[in-house]
Amino acid sequence: MKVVIVGGVAGGASTGARVRRLDDAAEILILERGHYVSFANCGLPYHVGGEIPDRDSLLLQTPESLAASLALDVRTGHEVVGVDAVAKEVEVREVDGGRTYRETYDKLVLCPGAEPIRPPIPGADHPRVDVLRNIPDMDRIISDVDAHATRAVVIGGSYIGLEMAEAFRTRGLTTTIVERTDRLMPWLDPEMTRILDFHVTTHGVDVRLGSSATAIREDGAALLVELSDGSSVATDIVVLAVGVRPSAELARQAGAVIGPLGGIAVDAEMRTSVPDILAAGDAVETAHFVTGEPVLSMLAGPANREGRIAAETICGRQTAYRGTQGTAIVKVFDMAAGGTGLTEAQLRERGINHRKVYTHNNDHAAYYPGSSPMFIKVLFAPGEGALLGAQVLGWDGVDKRIDVFAMALRAGVSVFDLEHVELAYAPPYGAAKDPVNMIGFQASNLLKGDIRLWYPEDYPECASKTAILDVRTPAEYGYWHVPEAINIPYTELRGRLGEVPRDRPVYSYCRSGFRSYLAYCILDQHGFTDTAFLSGGLITFCGFHRTPLQVGPGGFPIVAHVEDAMATRPGALEHV
Amino acid sequence: MKVVIVGGVAGGASTGARVRRLDDAAEILILERGHYVSFANCGLPYHVGGEIPDRDSLLLQTPESLAASLALDVRTGHEVVGVDAVAKEVEVREVDGGRTYRETYDKLVLCPGAEPIRPPIPGADHPRVDVLRNIPDMDRIISDVDAHATRAVVIGGSYIGLEMAEAFRTRGLTTTIVERTDRLMPWLDPEMTRILDFHVTTHGVDVRLGSSATAIREDGAALLVELSDGSSVATDIVVLAVGVRPSAELARQAGAVIGPLGGIAVDAEMRTSVPDILAAGDAVETAHFVTGEPVLSMLAGPANREGRIAAETICGRQTAYRGTQGTAIVKVFDMAAGGTGLTEAQLRERGINHRKVYTHNNDHAAYYPGSSPMFIKVLFAPGEGALLGAQVLGWDGVDKRIDVFAMALRAGVSVFDLEHVELAYAPPYGAAKDPVNMIGFQASNLLKGDIRLWYPEDYPECASKTAILDVRTPAEYGYWHVPEAINIPYTELRGRLGEVPRDRPVYSYCRSGFRSYLAYCILDQHGFTDTAFLSGGLITFCGFHRTPLQVGPGGFPIVAHVEDAMATRPGALEHV
Repeated sequence: MKVVIVGGVAGGASTGARVRRLDDAAEILILERGHYVSFANCGLPYHVGGEIPDRDSLLLQTPESLAASLALDVRTGHEVVGVDAVAKEVEVREVDGGRTYRETYDKLVLCPGAEPIRPPIPGADHPRVDVLRNIPDMDRIISDVDAHATRAVVIGGSYIGLEMAEAFRTRGLTTTIVERTDRLMPWLDPEMTRILDFHVTTHGVDVRLGSSATAIREDGAALLVELSDGSSVATDIVVLAVGVRPSAELARQAGAVIGPLGGIAVDAEMRTSVPDILAAGDAVETAHFVTGEPVLSMLAGPANREGRIAAETICGRQTAYRGTQGTAIVKVFDMAAGGTGLTEAQLRERGINHRKVYTHNNDHAAYYPGSSPMFIKVLFAPGEGALLGAQVLGWDGVDKRIDVFAMALRAGVSVFDLEHVELAYAPPYGAAKDPVNMIGFQASNLLKGDIRLWYPEDYPECASKTAILDVRTPAEYGYWHVPEAINIPYTELRGRLGEVPRDRPVYSYCRSGFRSYLAYCILDQHGFTDTAFLSGGLITFCGFHRTPLQVGPGGFPIVAHVEDAMATRPGALEHV
Repeated sequence: MKVVIVGGVAGGASTGARVRRLDDAAEILILERGHYVSFANCGLPYHVGGEIPDRDSLLLQTPESLAASLALDVRTGHEVVGVDAVAKEVEVREVDGGRTYRETYDKLVLCPGAEPIRPPIPGADHPRVDVLRNIPDMDRIISDVDAHATRAVVIGGSYIGLEMAEAFRTRGLTTTIVERTDRLMPWLDPEMTRILDFHVTTHGVDVRLGSSATAIREDGAALLVELSDGSSVATDIVVLAVGVRPSAELARQAGAVIGPLGGIAVDAEMRTSVPDILAAGDAVETAHFVTGEPVLSMLAGPANREGRIAAETICGRQTAYRGTQGTAIVKVFDMAAGGTGLTEAQLRERGINHRKVYTHNNDHAAYYPGSSPMFIKVLFAPGEGALLGAQVLGWDGVDKRIDVFAMALRAGVSVFDLEHVELAYAPPYGAAKDPVNMIGFQASNLLKGDIRLWYPEDYPECASKTAILDVRTPAEYGYWHVPEAINIPYTELRGRLGEVPRDRPVYSYCRSGFRSYLAYCILDQHGFTDTAFLSGGLITFCGFHRTPLQVGPGGFPIVAHVEDAMATRPGALEHV
């Protein structure tokens, strides 16, 4: 059997390795148009920033090492430019030299990856406007930085954009992020990411939200990035990080069905619609684990697994790709942000009925050094409480909680299992009631009808219909409060029930949602039957309403004035 | 309703808080014989060591704070000395002063915790022989250290013993651990903990394994700890950390059934056998999540959950404790060690049929700074592959993988789900194929019959019946190898198949198990039908056979000579 694999990075290399392990007699040919195979593309930004000092460490394999260990015939600089699915041949062009030749195949696996998108604006093709997708891209950016660059503009505020902004700051460049939407990491729900805007800004990055680049022009030795808000930013380097699109052209040419998102359509065995042609990696559309809908995952984990499945299919094994969960994480300076499953925005778009809760517990016991808050949101089905998605941001322990949620989602469990799961506790690592347990408590209390919640989006409408009760201390209330709120500290509530209006629903809140939960219990049992507390407290409230942020005690952001907030751009961040 | 709770630490405080939230009208009385409630007992060793500088941070609550927030009547220094289950009264003694009085109850919850065991040896009750269970214990140890102690002996090498040894080393004391079994952390399987013995020793602790203290005597100003091997250790402080036993005396006196392990027997609703008496925390026996057998968990997580369940039962809620998983972790200097579910030893004792695999992948992408190896063992059922237990040791990311396994165990999934779960990947946090996926691959390959494994315990018997094939490089082979092994690097294997004996089974191995897996695939497909590779490679092999260890490249232990190993005590550790 002769297996030809187009592309030698994550999906292609995984396919080749797995075919070899299953079939030592197979002839396996990997054709990679670039000059590197199986390199660490997720590590590229960290070499730009210098955290990974050794460039060679990114070159995980070479054609020679793959020949020695796995008897793979790897040809770099060989681009497949055509597929004849009837004759079962590919046409190959040598990138250096241009010679073309044909190779036959018994099985063809398309792993061409994805191409960075260049927005259709003047100057997007300027030679100093970079993308970061492979080793030569990285080398070029580093060489530009080394050539006395002092300023960088990153267009796009998601994964690569944030990683590149951090890399440029680490290298000492004045750095600007231009993001079209109203927030960084726009795939997360909006109320969750406010803290990221703040964190990135406090690390010296000029964050321009709600702006897009309209043109990139030369201005003497510099480049000038013109923005949709009429402003412009002078810079020495521009990196485009506005997303990628699947490289589906070869598949299309071979007659394969292309999916609704532009990726190569494959079945669970990674077969395209064309006999003997399979596909894996960033170029394919797989089924989402929760919805079953086609999804482009564009991440290394799924790419590796898909390659593995393709190989098993080729070798006649019973196998199936079990869906893409959408688990992801990004390091943003000292913080981490990510999630698994569906976001609230995705659930709403699809009309999927759901409930949600927020918590803000510390990653480990507060009395042990280095403890820091985590911001968690969990989405789940009404009734039985099947987990639908989770988002986590914070400083430490974020990856751990995302992975626990990812395992829970994969296992199909409910929020009741989050309540009961027994996680590893010692003070450096967690809490006797882990944040996962804590959010499980709130979710299961909600499903059992033991609590009622209100949410930031209920405001300001709710202000005219309810009594809003701030149960924090007078000092906290004095620092800032929801304008319509009255203040009764939860510790005084039992003795001051007469001050709580009985003619309207009572909506209580505190900073994170714990004290107002206690207040809820008191009110609920003293005849205030129409009462609720604010899930996630002011932390989530101010994230949703995008209030200005200030550095509070302990160095973590707390809220400033919500009155200003509705009209305030993040550029107005105050650092106290 | 009047609820009386005996004990105000983890289980008791949780019970009281949850009853209050569910019933604001309840009269809740917590009687704690110590002078502190709801303190951070898991943090005590870290205040001794100085990592937690502020003693007050360990005092999470006071009677005053609990009265203010939860309207609890908390009386410290009040010991319940008798229960009259017919009259529904307890007899209380004021620890300071000795006055006694009676309190009636509608519901009584026993949360008395556990008592440190003092071994029955001369001197165990000497005033400078300490235990560490509460704040006064901690204060006394710190005061002893401050009084110019330069030497400490810790008796017991499990959780508290290791944490105390680290604390004493951090304070600069010459420190000895005396452990009765042949290894530190004896609840983990023996082949896993060798690295801990080494790590603790390299941090300057004198580790005496296979020794027990036979007497503690005064020797001038010092104490002399006499050991079962005839040696003795002079010291200024002795801490006993040989375990705890449940404080079941009150329950016994009240007529409650005591379980086979000496703890208070409770049902899933935390009811004892006596009407209106419940129990929670370290003093109770709960059902193990996997076996259903009674188990003493003695950890903070279950204690908190049990208290919560007891409260829900009291307040008439439908509730049930869903079993103790046995999840645990301990920080040991820079390392972490722990697990969830059952160990191999526990499975063997119970005659539960099982399979096992080992992997040693790095915690995150090796090219990103700070990557370090992790040592993972997973136990699972034959056939469907239900997860039964997991153990993880390493430097970083250990808690994360334990928690993912704990969630998987709770969800009742199989090793096939470990293969497919999509975990959060970015280079600082993991790998595109996470260690959890990697061990899932090996386990599912094993169950599907795609691979065959051999194990360290097959040696030396297997040496006479098989060809042992070392597929590492000649340099590695030259440094050390299994004595009977022949060396053919896996990269040369295809060309040197003629050198591989065909008259015997072929058992291959490498350092961690990956290269020998590739060798297995080659051999299996070239007619060597009776072949297997060593799960976990030499790392696990040398852990099992307790070979001397040396510091190798990168600072991590590698193996030395196994010939010596069989007869060598860990005291002979060589530091190169």
